[in-house]
Amino acid sequence: MPRPGRAREILEAFTRQVAEVGYDETNFSAVAAEVGLSKGALSHHFGAKEQMLAALQESYMDRRSMELDLMTDQLGDPAERLAAVLHAFVIYYVQDRAATVAVHREIARLADREAMATGRAMRKTYLDAVREVLADGIGRGLFQAVDPALQTLLVFGSAQWMWTWFDPDGPTPPADVGSALVTLVLGGLLVDRAALKGLADPEGPAAKAARAAVDRVADTYDVADRIAGKR
Amino acid sequence: MPRPGRAREILEAFTRQVAEVGYDETNFSAVAAEVGLSKGALSHHFGAKEQMLAALQESYMDRRSMELDLMTDQLGDPAERLAAVLHAFVIYYVQDRAATVAVHREIARLADREAMATGRAMRKTYLDAVREVLADGIGRGLFQAVDPALQTLLVFGSAQWMWTWFDPDGPTPPADVGSALVTLVLGGLLVDRAALKGLADPEGPAAKAARAAVDRVADTYDVADRIAGKR
Repeated sequence: MPRPGRAREILEAFTRQVAEVGYDETNFSAVAAEVGLSKGALSHHFGAKEQMLAALQESYMDRRSMELDLMTDQLGDPAERLAAVLHAFVIYYVQDRAATVAVHREIARLADREAMATGRAMRKTYLDAVREVLADGIGRGLFQAVDPALQTLLVFGSAQWMWTWFDPDGPTPPADVGSALVTLVLGGLLVDRAALKGLADPEGPAAKAARAAVDRVADTYDVADRIAGKR
Repeated sequence: MPRPGRAREILEAFTRQVAEVGYDETNFSAVAAEVGLSKGALSHHFGAKEQMLAALQESYMDRRSMELDLMTDQLGDPAERLAAVLHAFVIYYVQDRAATVAVHREIARLADREAMATGRAMRKTYLDAVREVLADGIGRGLFQAVDPALQTLLVFGSAQWMWTWFDPDGPTPPADVGSALVTLVLGGLLVDRAALKGLADPEGPAAKAARAAVDRVADTYDVADRIAGKR
């Protein structure tokens, strides 16, 4: 049985390749070369290339779902919860960059493949949870009476399309991009916009809860279990 | 010299293939089979596959830019202009569906290729024009003082990511999706939200101007000139 550390390295190298050149152009040889293993050893760890893509998406959704739980525990208000989710979307492009670019670049295009069924279901669960935050805000009279499912999809699109243009080292600091996303989404949703500035503030409670959740999960999440399931 | 009608048919068949299976999986043989020509005849019309992709993006941006001019002429208010752009985004997924899905599915991924330089510049011009509408609204005190460049990118993302989830034959009528997009974006931007309902209304002046512009361009635009430039 190979050490889990090796499988983790392989998945990380694969993730960087997909983020940089796309799934179709990523091949076992390049990944094997990066981690100093033979193609045979790679197949031993992961079977097929699609299994690596599945492990990438599933481990990505593991982390996002753990963070969502942490932020939900930390914050009671639907507006703060939604603001934290939006701040976190931008943090992923900085702290979990390769996986975030890889997922947003390729997953939608490849979502129909059979190997992606688990990841697809996890993504749906996550979307449903965010939709519930919106529905909660509408139910409490804090948000405008929009269609929460439709609104969730439109909002996710704004964040997921960021892989095409957002550069964490560009002129706009990531925290300001997070604030802009909160201002766009909650500026429209909130019936009373008095709380908007605090929700968008990179030093406000929502942004702080997002950073704390991402840091906590980065420290504690171990991808080894997900990988083990793919062998 | 081949008839322009033939080149148009080839581009349409190519566009449908890219929308359905993606650029990498699209090949000259499948396109040739669909239009009943040999692969040699296809090459004669377009040279390389990348030239077809370039013609697809450039003709797409031709149409969008003509519609933007029509909507801008028709509507004087920045809020109405922006609302029309947003309604139009959703209309493209219905009336110009194959090209819209093909472009949003593949163009970002392939934007760096040399053949795409003209399309890339056209897309930038279009983004700049929409950013100017935002800046105009901010300058007149109608919109919140957001960063117009950043806001434009976030808003475009919401619309462009729609290729992954929006089904014009699904339970939500396209006009309602357009309204939801206007409500999301202008609900946050407008300093005074009194006009929002009219802007989002599928029978309001902004939605009507969007439909009229898309219909007009569909009737008058001829892709033959773009294709001629690729031969």
